Amino acid sequence: MIRVGINGYGNLGRGVELALTHASDMEAAVVFTRRSPESVTTLGTPVAHVDDMGAYVGKLDVVINCGGSATDLEAQGPAVTSLFNTVDSFDTHAKIPAHFAAVDDAARAASTLALISAGWDPGLFSMLRVLGEAVLPTGSTTTFWGPGVSQGHSDAIRRIRGVVDAKQYTVPVAETVAAVKERRDVELTPRTMHQRVCYVVAEEGADLAAIERAIVEMPNYFADYDTTVNFVSADVLAVEHRGIPHGGQVIRSGSTDDGVGETITFQLDLDSNPEFTGSVLVAAARAVARKAARGQTGAITLFDVTLAELSPLSEQELRAHYL
Amino acid sequence: MIRVGINGYGNLGRGVELALTHASDMEAAVVFTRRSPESVTTLGTPVAHVDDMGAYVGKLDVVINCGGSATDLEAQGPAVTSLFNTVDSFDTHAKIPAHFAAVDDAARAASTLALISAGWDPGLFSMLRVLGEAVLPTGSTTTFWGPGVSQGHSDAIRRIRGVVDAKQYTVPVAETVAAVKERRDVELTPRTMHQRVCYVVAEEGADLAAIERAIVEMPNYFADYDTTVNFVSADVLAVEHRGIPHGGQVIRSGSTDDGVGETITFQLDLDSNPEFTGSVLVAAARAVARKAARGQTGAITLFDVTLAELSPLSEQELRAHYL
Repeated sequence: MIRVGINGYGNLGRGVELALTHASDMEAAVVFTRRSPESVTTLGTPVAHVDDMGAYVGKLDVVINCGGSATDLEAQGPAVTSLFNTVDSFDTHAKIPAHFAAVDDAARAASTLALISAGWDPGLFSMLRVLGEAVLPTGSTTTFWGPGVSQGHSDAIRRIRGVVDAKQYTVPVAETVAAVKERRDVELTPRTMHQRVCYVVAEEGADLAAIERAIVEMPNYFADYDTTVNFVSADVLAVEHRGIPHGGQVIRSGSTDDGVGETITFQLDLDSNPEFTGSVLVAAARAVARKAARGQTGAITLFDVTLAELSPLSEQELRAHYL
Repeated sequence: MIRVGINGYGNLGRGVELALTHASDMEAAVVFTRRSPESVTTLGTPVAHVDDMGAYVGKLDVVINCGGSATDLEAQGPAVTSLFNTVDSFDTHAKIPAHFAAVDDAARAASTLALISAGWDPGLFSMLRVLGEAVLPTGSTTTFWGPGVSQGHSDAIRRIRGVVDAKQYTVPVAETVAAVKERRDVELTPRTMHQRVCYVVAEEGADLAAIERAIVEMPNYFADYDTTVNFVSADVLAVEHRGIPHGGQVIRSGSTDDGVGETITFQLDLDSNPEFTGSVLVAAARAVARKAARGQTGAITLFDVTLAELSPLSEQELRAHYL
């Protein structure tokens, strides 16, 4: 059994614990928390304070860093990697090379192995971007996100005066998706690619028109998109919008000869973004534990693992049943 | 530059040569043929007789075996692997373990590396089956093929008395595909999953009703499917059905918790089956050349390569731009 530590127990940490219940060759050995351990209720995994992590050296094959923010992960990466093999879902695009370097230094110093930026984007989508371009070098790659909840955009709405709560869905524009798949010429701009649909709970007596204007005109977040604002009650938001669905698709369209087109589409339709992300982290942790057991050290990404390393099955089983 | 030999110059060999024109780090060094070399016109690659292959030892980094049939590849695999690193698209499912073993023996004896069963199915579809199941262990995987031309079914029609020529398209049943993606309960049988649409050129005066009956009642090939037979002129077949399109999709639908579903879809829409297959073989050949340069020997499959090995880009470029 591969013994896994879960560092952090928010939505993602819970998603990792759930995913481990589906992995017959892995077990959740401990959840590390910054809160008081007795205040944390897991699905059954023992809980320890993050300050006691050092006592677990030698008892865990890999730790999955589930920090709730990029800042958490930036600190957790090198620190935890100096004790354990690790996996994280670091997703601040511009900082990935620096994070990789910091984690790589820690891993080489401690002779551990760390896989960064797993999940679905970055993660599976990244893998498919590389695969699509390796197979079809002449062409273009387009990523559509959604339909799904964007936490960042939901937070931006919540910061507007008069807003109690909000949820923002990113929705790909169906006609543009179809055009890209059919390799038709189509303009790709924020507005042609995605719509933004908002469900907003306002304070009683708030100026709804002002809130709506503040949303649709907000630079970077909404101004470049067609945005729809729906005011709803707190009850409706709680009941009809309680999930964290997401998804999207990576489309590689290329040509192999004049007038001969080929399209590769990879699509995710997820009821739960954190549970699916947790599932990817668990598969990545399996690969890390195996590679570390063979002596590999340093930092890696999903570009550096094989499918055989991600799968619990033997190479014989894979060849006999999956080719 | 990775120097590639192309063994066989039918549709697939031509697809490989075309794909190499898109790979800036690889070059087609020679085409081997069983025909008289001067009778073979390539896009520019020199042609040699297959009997002279031995003279190229040390001059090629990898040879792609493009034999036209499973029987060809079964023989080519061990023979060519005893001289060169190789890649093939062996696709007779039941014989894959035996083929792997034969190629592995030859590769170990000669200290070469051989990757078998690349292409899209087996190949990319196989990779996505393993990836889907590694990420979502609790669920089911469904493969739909088409819309596309099935060579085997087209050949079966051509063997019927009174048939001059024919082309058979395999078409996935749209409602069943939608049901699988939406994780609805649906019966999966040959008939509910795929339709067969045939375009047939009959001899003048042939008994069309008898031909149609012979097709739709043919066991294994057609009897278990809803089959449509269209009689067309030789001209229509030549003009409107001259392509070799294909494609399909692998759908992994799983659950991460009670009532929480996640779906991964990988879809191919190909204007040219052999050109796309050739493109996958070329990416696989890049990985083989690199792994062989690091001293790896024996037989492998696409389950044993990383995305970084398939891509021409450096690991730094991949991390900076594809995560």
